[in-house]
Amino acid sequence: MKLKFDEKGLVPVVVQDVNTKEVLMVAWANEEAIKLTKETGLAHYFSRSRRKLWKKGENSGNVQKVRRILVDCDEDTLLYEVEQAGGACHTGFRSCFYRTIEGEVVGVKVFEPKEVYDE
Amino acid sequence: MKLKFDEKGLVPVVVQDVNTKEVLMVAWANEEAIKLTKETGLAHYFSRSRRKLWKKGENSGNVQKVRRILVDCDEDTLLYEVEQAGGACHTGFRSCFYRTIEGEVVGVKVFEPKEVYDE
Repeated sequence: MKLKFDEKGLVPVVVQDVNTKEVLMVAWANEEAIKLTKETGLAHYFSRSRRKLWKKGENSGNVQKVRRILVDCDEDTLLYEVEQAGGACHTGFRSCFYRTIEGEVVGVKVFEPKEVYDE
Repeated sequence: MKLKFDEKGLVPVVVQDVNTKEVLMVAWANEEAIKLTKETGLAHYFSRSRRKLWKKGENSGNVQKVRRILVDCDEDTLLYEVEQAGGACHTGFRSCFYRTIEGEVVGVKVFEPKEVYDE
């Protein structure tokens, strides 16, 4: 399917746990990240701030096995259905969406970032 | 919570069915759309193509009652947990993510667009 990338050559990717259905994170992908994701079966993204391709879990080991990739009606957004190792969020929470908009913490912390990331 | 809007004053919003956990759509919101969503309890967005605020379901009647708004670790993406009336997608499917990236239709069609939208 021909995707509609934005002016930076990116599409947003919603990442959902295929088992719990929890929305884990939103990241961005370019054409190469999608190609690598398909080829390896592991989620790859493009970092807008670091301007580089990255593999989810490359530092933490918390990789995402991609079971299915869905595309939306406008063909400008993807949904990765994944098996998430450990937690998706660099803060140690299982999902990046661990707070309400009022700031209340509602998520589950599953690892301690200091023990996972080399500084 | 202070959100980080992009250069256009927008944040992406992932919309999830609070009951089935299905990811229904991704849209964009500006500060006013979020304010209206909170005030009315019904999902409002900002259309990038039409450059205007819109209420989900304003034409179709397929409104979204917003049960909870979550924010991600970077404070630049929202998750609306909603009760979806009818279908979320203008194509008549329940979710906008009704196809795989290979083009296979895997979603459920719940209404006929011609019968819902006035042309």
